[in-house]
Amino acid sequence: MINAYAAREAGGQLSPYQYDPGALKPGEVEIEVMYCGLCHSDLSIIDDEWGMSEYPVVPGHEVVGRVGQLGDQVTHLQPGQLVGLGWHSGYCNHCHSCNSGDQNLCADAQHTIIGHHGGFADKVRADGNSVIPIPDSIDPAKAGPLFCAGITVFNPLVQFDIKPNSRVGVIGIGGLGHLALQFLNAWGCEVTAFTSSDSKREEALALGAHHTLNSRDESAVEGAAGQFDVILSTVNVKLDWNLYLSTLKARGRLHFVGATTDPLDINVFQLILGQRQVSGSPVGSPETIAQMLEFAARHKIEPKVEMFPMSKVNEALDRLKSGDARYRIVLEAGK
Amino acid sequence: MINAYAAREAGGQLSPYQYDPGALKPGEVEIEVMYCGLCHSDLSIIDDEWGMSEYPVVPGHEVVGRVGQLGDQVTHLQPGQLVGLGWHSGYCNHCHSCNSGDQNLCADAQHTIIGHHGGFADKVRADGNSVIPIPDSIDPAKAGPLFCAGITVFNPLVQFDIKPNSRVGVIGIGGLGHLALQFLNAWGCEVTAFTSSDSKREEALALGAHHTLNSRDESAVEGAAGQFDVILSTVNVKLDWNLYLSTLKARGRLHFVGATTDPLDINVFQLILGQRQVSGSPVGSPETIAQMLEFAARHKIEPKVEMFPMSKVNEALDRLKSGDARYRIVLEAGK
Repeated sequence: MINAYAAREAGGQLSPYQYDPGALKPGEVEIEVMYCGLCHSDLSIIDDEWGMSEYPVVPGHEVVGRVGQLGDQVTHLQPGQLVGLGWHSGYCNHCHSCNSGDQNLCADAQHTIIGHHGGFADKVRADGNSVIPIPDSIDPAKAGPLFCAGITVFNPLVQFDIKPNSRVGVIGIGGLGHLALQFLNAWGCEVTAFTSSDSKREEALALGAHHTLNSRDESAVEGAAGQFDVILSTVNVKLDWNLYLSTLKARGRLHFVGATTDPLDINVFQLILGQRQVSGSPVGSPETIAQMLEFAARHKIEPKVEMFPMSKVNEALDRLKSGDARYRIVLEAGK
Repeated sequence: MINAYAAREAGGQLSPYQYDPGALKPGEVEIEVMYCGLCHSDLSIIDDEWGMSEYPVVPGHEVVGRVGQLGDQVTHLQPGQLVGLGWHSGYCNHCHSCNSGDQNLCADAQHTIIGHHGGFADKVRADGNSVIPIPDSIDPAKAGPLFCAGITVFNPLVQFDIKPNSRVGVIGIGGLGHLALQFLNAWGCEVTAFTSSDSKREEALALGAHHTLNSRDESAVEGAAGQFDVILSTVNVKLDWNLYLSTLKARGRLHFVGATTDPLDINVFQLILGQRQVSGSPVGSPETIAQMLEFAARHKIEPKVEMFPMSKVNEALDRLKSGDARYRIVLEAGK
């Protein structure tokens, strides 16, 4: 039996939930959970904001643990090995995207917390190729957020070939943004943090930003016209996107890893005249996750976290909802 | 003196207009006009639709002619040489874009028909590096439309590295689209024409499309979900862009070379989940124009044109406004 925490209905509190996962299937891995990050998407699935939740929901998709049981045919992992698991717990492994190394874009990928039980538990199962070894020098207590927040902001650097001589702006300095600043600084870029929070300005500089800009000061943003090669938006609020497009150089890119349901309202002349692009991306593929972990280990990049015992998961969720967490919450299993 | 046709006010008829261009400046070229294409942008500038016209407006930015006088310092052209001139008649030649070979993105580029007199005339002047030699095997009477319509649809193939193994859709089979079909076919792509016109369907296949899709048949467009690597929109009407985004594969691109003032209303989840991109581009750089001409000559790509004597320019404009021209109008100078 697996001992987990689950929501039984949309918006419900989490409470202990035991389930029998059955026999381990070929290709599967059982992870003995040590830590699990808490991501805003967990809340969206608990609350069924996206209309795709399946109850009981066991959240948790920033899992860190040790390999326990290994199913047949899993040969690349050893029992006891430190590993992580993110948004996807399996892929179809035969579609165009999977065949191209873009498992993260597989339309039939298994989501760790939708129709599958996630990492707010003592154990979690996943297909072998979604379970990624964690380098020794990474602190397991802080590794969890790399598996969703971290890969989400690292992935565009690889996918869109962002260069060290690029000027990059990051909108929103939270769970994703505070990692984006660190990755971009280590990537060699000139980094600007757009934030509306006075208190985050100094922290943004300490995290790796070279400059900060008040995202609520329209004239300051206007003053940055034509400055950036890339702007990475991590926020889930609607901003004046045409204003941000105007801060891009010719050939610049406005890239979304945060989302709102409001349409983007893009002025097409902003795209045509400057040959600009608007794009989005989700989490990364297993290979990109592995590259991210190697890069994070080598550059000593780690999330800033607040730790909660997993038994206090509801308090942790309240803390997340407050918006005050600096910058990511991690639950410790068995406590 | 130069004998031209000009509009004196927004929406005005064109009438004969003589002007003295003064002494030829260093770096300038005077072209003796043989033919000049008629583009929808000429109409937009005549009518001051974009609020940037400067009267008198001498339209014409698809110029074909012979090199006449050469200013000092122009060493790459010979008198009598067959050349063309497009949307830009000069560049700043020192900004980041110019230095990067992206003269077409130069914010200070001179527009041929804004604050400068264009090619509805017996002569037109331009800076040497905006004047491009035309290969011998291209018919001068049909070369004009390549300098705006042609380069506008060819440019994205180069800029966004479109591959011969790509599936590409073209929305709108008009002046731009009928050239896009030819270029994409010759580029090796699998080409689909989206058109709402029954009469254009057969013509689209003859021009190089492998498939056609009725752009007004929503269920047909829905049926193409996940099919395309790239969709090139040449239209200036608002369509259901999220529907078209859904016809893209993961990593697909919706690219705009046609524009409306309506915002694009993009659903950001369409971008994030499939790592999709929305982009735009204007005409091309001198180097890309030269590449396009070489490619068109080698693959025998040419616009389908309707010829008018330049003295009947107002009739030609009426024909353009009718929307019935198949597919581009060319004025013949001296007639």
